[in-house]
Amino acid sequence: MIIKQQLKKISIADIARELHVSKTTVSFILNGRAEEKRIGREVVERVQKFIEEVGYRPNPLAQSLRTGKSNIIALMVEDISNPFFASIARLIEDRAYKNGYKIIYCSTDNDPAKTRDLISMFRERHVDGYIIAPPEGIEDEISALMKAKMPVVLFDRHLNDVKTDLVEIDNMFSTYNATKHLTEQGFKKIAYVTFSSNQSQMLARLDGYNKALEESGYKPFVKEIAFNQNDDLIIGPITAFLKKNKNLDAVFFGTNHVGTCGLQVITDLGIQVPSDLAVVSFDDYNVFKMHSPPVTAISQPIEAIADNVITVLLNRLNTSSQHISSQSIVLKTDLHIRGSSLRAAQ
Amino acid sequence: MIIKQQLKKISIADIARELHVSKTTVSFILNGRAEEKRIGREVVERVQKFIEEVGYRPNPLAQSLRTGKSNIIALMVEDISNPFFASIARLIEDRAYKNGYKIIYCSTDNDPAKTRDLISMFRERHVDGYIIAPPEGIEDEISALMKAKMPVVLFDRHLNDVKTDLVEIDNMFSTYNATKHLTEQGFKKIAYVTFSSNQSQMLARLDGYNKALEESGYKPFVKEIAFNQNDDLIIGPITAFLKKNKNLDAVFFGTNHVGTCGLQVITDLGIQVPSDLAVVSFDDYNVFKMHSPPVTAISQPIEAIADNVITVLLNRLNTSSQHISSQSIVLKTDLHIRGSSLRAAQ
Repeated sequence: MIIKQQLKKISIADIARELHVSKTTVSFILNGRAEEKRIGREVVERVQKFIEEVGYRPNPLAQSLRTGKSNIIALMVEDISNPFFASIARLIEDRAYKNGYKIIYCSTDNDPAKTRDLISMFRERHVDGYIIAPPEGIEDEISALMKAKMPVVLFDRHLNDVKTDLVEIDNMFSTYNATKHLTEQGFKKIAYVTFSSNQSQMLARLDGYNKALEESGYKPFVKEIAFNQNDDLIIGPITAFLKKNKNLDAVFFGTNHVGTCGLQVITDLGIQVPSDLAVVSFDDYNVFKMHSPPVTAISQPIEAIADNVITVLLNRLNTSSQHISSQSIVLKTDLHIRGSSLRAAQ
Repeated sequence: MIIKQQLKKISIADIARELHVSKTTVSFILNGRAEEKRIGREVVERVQKFIEEVGYRPNPLAQSLRTGKSNIIALMVEDISNPFFASIARLIEDRAYKNGYKIIYCSTDNDPAKTRDLISMFRERHVDGYIIAPPEGIEDEISALMKAKMPVVLFDRHLNDVKTDLVEIDNMFSTYNATKHLTEQGFKKIAYVTFSSNQSQMLARLDGYNKALEESGYKPFVKEIAFNQNDDLIIGPITAFLKKNKNLDAVFFGTNHVGTCGLQVITDLGIQVPSDLAVVSFDDYNVFKMHSPPVTAISQPIEAIADNVITVLLNRLNTSSQHISSQSIVLKTDLHIRGSSLRAAQ
């Protein structure tokens, strides 16, 4: 009998040779088709006993070629170093690992060309499913994946005219509600500083701000900054905006990155919060909680987002039927009111 | 001639059938072995022209089985949601992508059993190389990878008795230098709060603190907390420690996570920084820079760490020779002195 070797070294051919049966027979037994192929009980038992003894495990790449399954899920986020995406990636990874899947990730930089290139590489690599925070402009690629019956879950934002499984938050209500909080505190000249974007979540956030101001009869002051991951290219425009608009009494930052940079500017310019300027930000992180004064922030339900994303995807992966209609899940946020936006704190 | 179909649908068999040559012939031509196998020039040209016309691309999984290359690099960090690892992961991903590699990542939670399981899965999946911030207890698995001629780069910490490529920072000098800064400012009762760990970088940091105090003749106060990613389980022990040791005049936090939780405790207990307690932390993040007062911190050269890690790995992947001896790169940190540790600020 063959001495127990390294697992990966034993092939179906080795087993066949050792037991004097054909490779096809071994293959059928390994794939659970012995009965269908009328292979004798004695042979099946002999093969199974041998496999157990030598610790044979099928080559997963060969298996992947045969079954089309790789047990790898592609996770495409805007930027893995952004704490929002890093936290979600961590939770998705944990749940995937417990279910036997590994995560291959990449950062799209919101660049449609890069994203298309990555999707094409993932398709060649036969990943089993896709979790994507999509930039605009990849509608055709997503539709192609769906036509090829690939499980795709979008999150954080959706694409118009593409009906996939989707996990989002209620962006419009979140900014509407936070802006209302500012007007209720008596602030009237409320700026909204955000990345310039046509992504669905960004448009909805802007809508919520505009809607609340319209209801109060106040004029909107919107400052849009070109999307960038470099702090300096965010700090520069915010500095110029705040220097130019000294009459503002509140500022609402539309993303965590804009908010972090905005706080830096406020500190650098020596602006007192909230007496000179009240502050609210989308997303809630340590830097906001631990600021002095603590910053009022819209907290996204990170765990619920990750849980829903992976649950929907695993359901798709484990269901043979392709006829389940797509799900759209909208989660609620929490507005954490802190010192940075309270009139009473002055 | 076959109508141009979807790329992945065309097989070697299709090409062979269409051109009336054998599959073996097509395969030899695709693998650049036409000359060796004395295949006629006319046939080679006919196959190449056809391949170009139909846009045939070899199945990367089949190719991977044949060549043993997957163009995937495994990245194993402690916790992808930790900003230190998330930032490094982002930079490594960028460099890998530009060089045609994708990153499959996972968080080890410093758990050797989980890490062993993950390495075994990655081996089965034929990843081309490994970048690992290793927990203790996986020495055998790393040695096995090296015996199998797999490129492995460790970073952030090393394993005793395992000689791999390695990228580290000078941990001992970093804490020695920061502790010296505190003693030079006149602080005498300096606590060191850290995770309990036998990892090389953690032991070196503790050594640096002890060495500086020994030189000054002051007594060390070390508080070790069980490693955990849950804030509450870090905040609890720090609160108890600071409440019990009210005579301390400075505290040095040994990791970014301990530092962030420590600042939270200091704020919650109403301790004034630096008049009641000076503060220094390992790692430098927004939460420290933007704290009031800003916190003195040891800044790791994130970009240089990522650059060195991926450069060393890519060199290994692109070099056929296995005889290059392993490299050990030690990078310097910067101590950013801020208001939290200055006597003059009182």
